[in-house]
Amino acid sequence: MTEPAYVAVDWGTSSFRLWLVDRAGQVLAERRSGEGMLAAAKAGFPAVLQSHLAAIEAPDHLPVLVCGMAGAKTGWVEAGYVDTPAPLAAVLTQAVRVPGQARDIRILPGIAQRDVSAPDVMRGEETQLLGALGLEAMGEALVCMPGTHSKWVRVKDGVVERFSTFMTGELFSAVSQETILSLAVAGADEAEDIASFKAAVKAAYEAPAFVANHLFSARSRQLLFGGAPAAAREALSGTLIGVELAAGLSGSVPQTGIRLIAAGRLAVLYRLAFEALSVNAHPVDADEAVRRGLSMAAAAIWKSKDL
Amino acid sequence: MTEPAYVAVDWGTSSFRLWLVDRAGQVLAERRSGEGMLAAAKAGFPAVLQSHLAAIEAPDHLPVLVCGMAGAKTGWVEAGYVDTPAPLAAVLTQAVRVPGQARDIRILPGIAQRDVSAPDVMRGEETQLLGALGLEAMGEALVCMPGTHSKWVRVKDGVVERFSTFMTGELFSAVSQETILSLAVAGADEAEDIASFKAAVKAAYEAPAFVANHLFSARSRQLLFGGAPAAAREALSGTLIGVELAAGLSGSVPQTGIRLIAAGRLAVLYRLAFEALSVNAHPVDADEAVRRGLSMAAAAIWKSKDL
Repeated sequence: MTEPAYVAVDWGTSSFRLWLVDRAGQVLAERRSGEGMLAAAKAGFPAVLQSHLAAIEAPDHLPVLVCGMAGAKTGWVEAGYVDTPAPLAAVLTQAVRVPGQARDIRILPGIAQRDVSAPDVMRGEETQLLGALGLEAMGEALVCMPGTHSKWVRVKDGVVERFSTFMTGELFSAVSQETILSLAVAGADEAEDIASFKAAVKAAYEAPAFVANHLFSARSRQLLFGGAPAAAREALSGTLIGVELAAGLSGSVPQTGIRLIAAGRLAVLYRLAFEALSVNAHPVDADEAVRRGLSMAAAAIWKSKDL
Repeated sequence: MTEPAYVAVDWGTSSFRLWLVDRAGQVLAERRSGEGMLAAAKAGFPAVLQSHLAAIEAPDHLPVLVCGMAGAKTGWVEAGYVDTPAPLAAVLTQAVRVPGQARDIRILPGIAQRDVSAPDVMRGEETQLLGALGLEAMGEALVCMPGTHSKWVRVKDGVVERFSTFMTGELFSAVSQETILSLAVAGADEAEDIASFKAAVKAAYEAPAFVANHLFSARSRQLLFGGAPAAAREALSGTLIGVELAAGLSGSVPQTGIRLIAAGRLAVLYRLAFEALSVNAHPVDADEAVRRGLSMAAAAIWKSKDL
């Protein structure tokens, strides 16, 4: 096994992921847990990090680079924001060192859009963008990053120009668990209903103002015509994603199409959604993107130490 | 005090209202409680009704007419639906008698739109429509009925032609209590922020596809620019109502404008919303409408008994 060079951490709102990485960027060990910002704020950020470092037997001198919500005001140490228009290169230079720790631990900043009519913030996605697009990418990119809080980002010549957050994932959870629609989806199995999903994406894309009506239809349809809970769940998901796509695609789409940075089930759903609308979307693995972004940042920050 | 002639009950999902009414339609006594369908399904519908009848000392022979969710499949006795196109007069003739009760208790049917591409149901609103428009109303009306599940209804010459349910009220509750936006509205006082509300209505009306982004902005705005929780709450409310109005007003609006059947705070909010869009809306009190509708139905059902 090669020598470990640093530890990379993606510390989100509800998830924690850690990688032990060597000089060449190869992953030597990995940890995943549900100890995101919300859990870590209770357990203590240093304790959570240390437990994972101990589990992979990380040497004491090894530096740690963190991106994500650990840098929020309500996180570990506030890491501030790079303001739009935000060169991705600036993310590398504004990492904040966690004080009072023997180990060199740094947290990357987020990006803020200080526009009173469209205020917005991201934390973690800037590192995925870095990994997916690189520092030197010329030309225009429109990036869709699905999630609890999906981001749609316009990047030009390595600069984040504008972005919008859509709380699509969180709306899906709230709607399917906390409203009358919980009755419609109760007992839904894992069976997919791609036809229901695609039909809902199209209907929502074509008439986004009817979103609160499309959602309720999942219940009315069951009452009047029957239908499986899985079909209702896919209809809710398709409706919310279709409305997001109607907004995200409302501006100009670059000739090169959309970059879809996603992982797991969301990658599958959004690929199907773009397919339903006959829009060209190039998938990029989100896990790989964030790891590559953290590697680029680690190399830039600790180059003096010859990582 | 004049003789009571019948008891009218509006039995919704989460609210129960009862009126003791005389031959002339005058209210002699009133009861309100939170024992809607959900609570009554546990406590038992006969017991809940009887407790309120006892409280107003209603004579044993007095008939009771019920509208609303008590007639749902998950309610007391299923009262079926009149299908669209649904003459309001048909609602009067299809009441279902509750079996096994000494007292004459009847539940009015709802209205169903059995259209596979726009399935929808209402229970209770048909009685409000009856009271607000009457049986003989000629011409076309576009009716907005705000609520947990808002209804937009097209009525022509006394016939409900089409309608759409928007789960605007329930979305507001879920979004402001069960998502990250709960942080933005936490501690909001009763102070209104009409400017925030109207601005959100307009923004959502103009770009309804951005609904999940407009909602998240309430949080981003606070993070980047500060602002009171009440402003965030009004922004959420205005966003969801603005999107509903974008859909409701997307078809033709009759020359006579919109009929707004609403009560309490929703009546105020929707009046402000229509005002923000410079749309002419004629307010009708929802409580009065449902009472009048129940009176019309009671007179039609028990005319043989010379109510």
